[in-house]
Amino acid sequence: MQIEKYKIDEFNHHLSKEHSSRYEFAAASVSNLDDVLQKLVDFQIAIPSWALGTGGTRFGRFSGGGEPGTLEEKIEDVGLLHSLNRSSGAISLHIPWDIPQNYQAIKSLAAQHGLKFDAVNSNTFQDQPDQQYSYKFGSMQHVDKAVRRQAVEHNIEVIRHGIELGSESLTVWLSDGSCFPGQLNFRKAFQNTLESLEEVYAAMPDNWKMYVEYKAFEPNFYSTTIGDWGQSLLMANKLGPKAYTLVDLGHHLPNANIEQIVALLLMEGKLGGFHFNDSKYSDDDLTTGSIKPYQLFLIFNELVAGMDARGMNHAKDLGWMIDAAHNVKDPLEDLLQSVEAIMLAYAQALLVDRTALAEAQQVNDVVRCQEILQDAFRTDVRPLVAEAQLRAGGAVRPLQLYRQLKVRENLIRERGLKTVASGL
Amino acid sequence: MQIEKYKIDEFNHHLSKEHSSRYEFAAASVSNLDDVLQKLVDFQIAIPSWALGTGGTRFGRFSGGGEPGTLEEKIEDVGLLHSLNRSSGAISLHIPWDIPQNYQAIKSLAAQHGLKFDAVNSNTFQDQPDQQYSYKFGSMQHVDKAVRRQAVEHNIEVIRHGIELGSESLTVWLSDGSCFPGQLNFRKAFQNTLESLEEVYAAMPDNWKMYVEYKAFEPNFYSTTIGDWGQSLLMANKLGPKAYTLVDLGHHLPNANIEQIVALLLMEGKLGGFHFNDSKYSDDDLTTGSIKPYQLFLIFNELVAGMDARGMNHAKDLGWMIDAAHNVKDPLEDLLQSVEAIMLAYAQALLVDRTALAEAQQVNDVVRCQEILQDAFRTDVRPLVAEAQLRAGGAVRPLQLYRQLKVRENLIRERGLKTVASGL
Amino acid sequence: MQIEKYKIDEFNHHLSKEHSSRYEFAAASVSNLDDVLQKLVDFQIAIPSWALGTGGTRFGRFSGGGEPGTLEEKIEDVGLLHSLNRSSGAISLHIPWDIPQNYQAIKSLAAQHGLKFDAVNSNTFQDQPDQQYSYKFGSMQHVDKAVRRQAVEHNIEVIRHGIELGSESLTVWLSDGSCFPGQLNFRKAFQNTLESLEEVYAAMPDNWKMYVEYKAFEPNFYSTTIGDWGQSLLMANKLGPKAYTLVDLGHHLPNANIEQIVALLLMEGKLGGFHFNDSKYSDDDLTTGSIKPYQLFLIFNELVAGMDARGMNHAKDLGWMIDAAHNVKDPLEDLLQSVEAIMLAYAQALLVDRTALAEAQQVNDVVRCQEILQDAFRTDVRPLVAEAQLRAGGAVRPLQLYRQLKVRENLIRERGLKTVASGL
Amino acid sequence: MQIEKYKIDEFNHHLSKEHSSRYEFAAASVSNLDDVLQKLVDFQIAIPSWALGTGGTRFGRFSGGGEPGTLEEKIEDVGLLHSLNRSSGAISLHIPWDIPQNYQAIKSLAAQHGLKFDAVNSNTFQDQPDQQYSYKFGSMQHVDKAVRRQAVEHNIEVIRHGIELGSESLTVWLSDGSCFPGQLNFRKAFQNTLESLEEVYAAMPDNWKMYVEYKAFEPNFYSTTIGDWGQSLLMANKLGPKAYTLVDLGHHLPNANIEQIVALLLMEGKLGGFHFNDSKYSDDDLTTGSIKPYQLFLIFNELVAGMDARGMNHAKDLGWMIDAAHNVKDPLEDLLQSVEAIMLAYAQALLVDRTALAEAQQVNDVVRCQEILQDAFRTDVRPLVAEAQLRAGGAVRPLQLYRQLKVRENLIRERGLKTVASGL
Repeated sequence: MQIEKYKIDEFNHHLSKEHSSRYEFAAASVSNLDDVLQKLVDFQIAIPSWALGTGGTRFGRFSGGGEPGTLEEKIEDVGLLHSLNRSSGAISLHIPWDIPQNYQAIKSLAAQHGLKFDAVNSNTFQDQPDQQYSYKFGSMQHVDKAVRRQAVEHNIEVIRHGIELGSESLTVWLSDGSCFPGQLNFRKAFQNTLESLEEVYAAMPDNWKMYVEYKAFEPNFYSTTIGDWGQSLLMANKLGPKAYTLVDLGHHLPNANIEQIVALLLMEGKLGGFHFNDSKYSDDDLTTGSIKPYQLFLIFNELVAGMDARGMNHAKDLGWMIDAAHNVKDPLEDLLQSVEAIMLAYAQALLVDRTALAEAQQVNDVVRCQEILQDAFRTDVRPLVAEAQLRAGGAVRPLQLYRQLKVRENLIRERGLKTVASGL
Repeated sequence: MQIEKYKIDEFNHHLSKEHSSRYEFAAASVSNLDDVLQKLVDFQIAIPSWALGTGGTRFGRFSGGGEPGTLEEKIEDVGLLHSLNRSSGAISLHIPWDIPQNYQAIKSLAAQHGLKFDAVNSNTFQDQPDQQYSYKFGSMQHVDKAVRRQAVEHNIEVIRHGIELGSESLTVWLSDGSCFPGQLNFRKAFQNTLESLEEVYAAMPDNWKMYVEYKAFEPNFYSTTIGDWGQSLLMANKLGPKAYTLVDLGHHLPNANIEQIVALLLMEGKLGGFHFNDSKYSDDDLTTGSIKPYQLFLIFNELVAGMDARGMNHAKDLGWMIDAAHNVKDPLEDLLQSVEAIMLAYAQALLVDRTALAEAQQVNDVVRCQEILQDAFRTDVRPLVAEAQLRAGGAVRPLQLYRQLKVRENLIRERGLKTVASGL
Repeated sequence: MQIEKYKIDEFNHHLSKEHSSRYEFAAASVSNLDDVLQKLVDFQIAIPSWALGTGGTRFGRFSGGGEPGTLEEKIEDVGLLHSLNRSSGAISLHIPWDIPQNYQAIKSLAAQHGLKFDAVNSNTFQDQPDQQYSYKFGSMQHVDKAVRRQAVEHNIEVIRHGIELGSESLTVWLSDGSCFPGQLNFRKAFQNTLESLEEVYAAMPDNWKMYVEYKAFEPNFYSTTIGDWGQSLLMANKLGPKAYTLVDLGHHLPNANIEQIVALLLMEGKLGGFHFNDSKYSDDDLTTGSIKPYQLFLIFNELVAGMDARGMNHAKDLGWMIDAAHNVKDPLEDLLQSVEAIMLAYAQALLVDRTALAEAQQVNDVVRCQEILQDAFRTDVRPLVAEAQLRAGGAVRPLQLYRQLKVRENLIRERGLKTVASGL
Repeated sequence: MQIEKYKIDEFNHHLSKEHSSRYEFAAASVSNLDDVLQKLVDFQIAIPSWALGTGGTRFGRFSGGGEPGTLEEKIEDVGLLHSLNRSSGAISLHIPWDIPQNYQAIKSLAAQHGLKFDAVNSNTFQDQPDQQYSYKFGSMQHVDKAVRRQAVEHNIEVIRHGIELGSESLTVWLSDGSCFPGQLNFRKAFQNTLESLEEVYAAMPDNWKMYVEYKAFEPNFYSTTIGDWGQSLLMANKLGPKAYTLVDLGHHLPNANIEQIVALLLMEGKLGGFHFNDSKYSDDDLTTGSIKPYQLFLIFNELVAGMDARGMNHAKDLGWMIDAAHNVKDPLEDLLQSVEAIMLAYAQALLVDRTALAEAQQVNDVVRCQEILQDAFRTDVRPLVAEAQLRAGGAVRPLQLYRQLKVRENLIRERGLKTVASGL
């Protein structure tokens, strides 16, 4: 299914008066308006191919209908999102769930939807039916060199797929770790992982980046070998200049100050990218911005400040991806909400008066520092994001139009009620 | 120091055009505008007498200047706040830090500032110089009946002061608990506490409420005898209809769903009141709304819904108090920020479309439920709160006027640079 | 597979000298030796039918071989455990995973293995293929009465099965809750759940108990309708004298003082039973005693003290069950380790000098209180537990004999390498 | 007060039969007995000078009697402990609380008690009466160079004191951080801290070590500039080979895997030392081993394995210190309990069968790995520790003798009931 442009135009036209009035009010107090709008237009968040179906927990999964069953249908789904919000112009593939049969056909399909191929993702946390060795006790950390070899080769294969599609980065999330004290020699596990990653690193083209993801726990419940930002940074530093740390918002211990981690990684030139989601308890993978929107804003506040300090391009110099599960929502609606929340946080971060903030910090005027941040956060920036998406060809209210056009009903008609997308 | 009304008027006049334009925009989309404004005018948050000085930690305290040294000066400080925001028209006294010498004089001073006396607070977590028995091992839970007796009598004395001043509630926060496994017989500690509270309860006038506060930990680090809402509710139910649970936002284990607790306590008719603050790690006692403003909104969302369901008066039927410490901010500025954050969260909760929410809940439209809540939260309600405070005689921007009038500099001139207010 | 008694005897005989020497040393310092041994002999921990296969996470499952495919094989597996340790003489069934086809045959098979039927467990957290309504948005809390009806009827059916088998309790674990703010009316969800449970309660025979389990989060990640002990107790009190709270060690927020909860529930006469496991982060479902053995001891310390205070029979008056998952261990070995850890903690708790402890508590001698508890905990009670199991006909070292007899290899030979037991 | 040797001998003689029987049983199963005993004899844990008085919280302090009022009395107190357990032969001084007036006299007093001077500790988390600049907004991170300068000079002065006394390490714990979002530029704060530490580093003699301590939160409640091991390691690596990370058990986010951190720091050659204590919620500073004794053992398991892998001397190559507060216990009794718990964990770690563990790890025999660790942990090693302390001239049961000799009563007689030691 594709949404015809005229339907979007009709919808926008219908809401144009209301939007204009809101936009004008919002725009009036933004000094660098054009710059803000352009940045919002440029900013694109990659959609992971595994997030287009209903997710589940170990206790079960309650699938919805019309889920994409093929890579082509997944691209179509991301295309749908992008046509509505013009902010999700990339897809992040997961191997082996999304092995392309025909690169040219896939690339041309994506191009047709205005999509790029973001980071490719390897999978050594599950056993595949035809696999020689099991990852039950880890992959790149494994005590057995043959298992490590298999994991390395899988990653090299993933890189090969990525090259064909035009990706320029590899995300390595290792679930490797242990469930019980004594199970693992922590030091050897780290060293084995490093050696394995070195081989993968060597196989990456020069213009590629490796994103080394970390996670505090799950699916291992005693230790994770790349368990926090410190371990990831240590790994990335040992690997070399193409290796970076990837931050997933749900991968921390309770109460971690993620924005500080982000700032320091940027300071070190070692932040690679982001996996957006939200959580209350652990890696809950909820809709971005649904639980802690202020934290999301504070992270963007550091991202904007830290990237500007290094003269980085917001849209291109880091990898921006969603990584969520949608157990009780329509996945596409969930993704529209996530993208909107990210855009709002980014817009608010762009509104922060950085000169005033630096001055207030310099005199330890803590009250004023808070006022400056909260002034941006309390501003209703929805009209600004809407205007940017409008200018880029999207719908002024993507979710509303999605419902109005009965997209899900159409997808169910096309694909059936019982399809289950690959993923978690 | 008192702020002359004409200075507030001048200030408001100066900002009137800007405010009007913002207010009109905000008001345009509020259907029940008058009702919302009136509720905002009526809503009053009590200021605790111990929050007017700089707070500290066990590692030290960095005092500021011009802190109030007497009860009279504390009332004056709250009066200052109230004259600016018209939303903090009550003071909550702590005994023995604020024992009034002359009730009539104190009452007339408070009245002069438009202040009421909210809940009185007892203190059995510290030893006073002239005290017979020590609370080192607890007060109302103590193994020694004489210590419990002393704690009970102190509370009865606090009630007596409260009656004289016109308070109608007693807040009992017990730090009682244990630091090490084995130290305490949990069951006896609970029973002793219950028996002690029963004596205090019996001494309360019929129109009084007892607020039974709970706290997960600190200053005891293994167990707290009234440690969570379940223990407080159990206690309150055993005590009788005048006993209620008091919720302090900082007194929970990590990730607790406070809004659900609030909803259930309202359902049971056993929510008594609130201690507002914010925190990231434990009982950090930070400015309300400075860390998790969305959580604050979600709590108010439950408060409004739950009180309306019981036909309760928002302003009068629960006790609303701030309980924070201000280690690195001017206490009065901090309190202005806290009150504003509370008013904003309350205003947003008033804007929630409850009919639509109930409908969406009824059909499990989770996406829409989230949209409805976030629509209210993302709305910039600052002009609405400002308008309410303006109508009530306050300043359109209390913090800005506070600074413009150099209130702190005046207080330092009056009271000196080295005064230290009683409190923590 | 069944283990012939003579093999156990041979094994014990072989180790008898070593065991005797250790036992004599351990026994020498136990004053009430016979009593302790008898209590250890009597104490039985039920094995849940779903814990006999390899568990998994949402990221995958790495199955082992020889898993039981039928209820008969599950009973056989528990029988194996019980023949080795004589401490796991009960099985807890889960419906619909273990619906018996022929009650008499099943009962007689269980009797043959010396097993009783402990609590039966209902399942309304998953959809079954033939089910009319989905539990995607809850079961007993559901906004739709028809869904609640279905959940109630399922529970009534579970009771019927239980009656036939001789069970006398029903464990109700409700995963009901919400993933996003706004999704649920907390109060209605609680009321709906209460009404549903009332119907189930009414269907229980008079000699039955209902165990109302609580859990902080997962599979719902914003709220759980019976989320903590306070909510469970509130529910149980409203239901009536046959309803009790069930404590699962992994179902709490970080740092919760579980032993205090246990003590208070015993004080209220409302503790029903236990689900044993261990965890470091969330509901990790690790081997009992593998992460926090001291906490396990402290819990047993409260259990022994609290039950004795009410004159309860340790073995019979509460429900004792394991509820764990075994993602990287042989499930039967894991269960042997869990049972041993529970027996050790119980034995240590029986050694606590309660008179001395009460005296030390009475004079606030915190140092001595700690010494008394740690003296019991630091005592090596393994020989005592071994002696008790020996006297009851078990093996002096169950795990060692399990390996020596190559039980798993035998099971794989019997059942095949690729069987997957029902469960999580 | 000093304990005459003959009293210790008498005490030991009295208990010798009982001890011998227990020791012989314990020794029988230890293969490398002499090695284990010698290591236990050699192992010394430094006592911090600030831990000799009763600690408190922000809510108050309940002092005990007989606390040491001078540096001399503090040395005497540590001497007392050391004469009893022969395992606490070092004192760690805190400047400015313990500025020596006469180095020679102090050194000779310490020598008389058999004590060495361990790491010296600086204090830039409090303002001293005569101090020019305030540390309210940080010290080495401060936006004002003059404040940083003052903090650096204080540290250099501390080094000077340490040199005179024979210390060879400096512990830098920086409470620097922020309480509110926006207050701090995280990157500048880190850079300022680094520059300040570089100056201190340059002032250290070549044979000195700098211990860079980290802490998640408190007294700052939003961010801490050296907040976790990753930030400390980053700092230490930038500083140079004399800089190391110091681990305090209470300075982590909930559920952190501290033993893994320890292993990795050892792997990197960057672990400097330890601050022992225990906690349930945050930095509770409870008696070591009182809450999580198994975690303590797991940490020592990594310490022994990791140090052995690098050929390090257990007793000398890392700094071992207690850092606890004693709010409800006699400080000296608390310290005796802490030292014992540390010695027990160390002894258990020495008993781990490392060859068998390595083999089990190599074949992923998780069950056996756990058995091996728990076999060591479940062994009652108290007789081994007692024997080692006995051989070194101490008492077979230090705490019992402490009470029997009425040490505290004597100290109160000597020093009075109302003395308050400097510290927290």
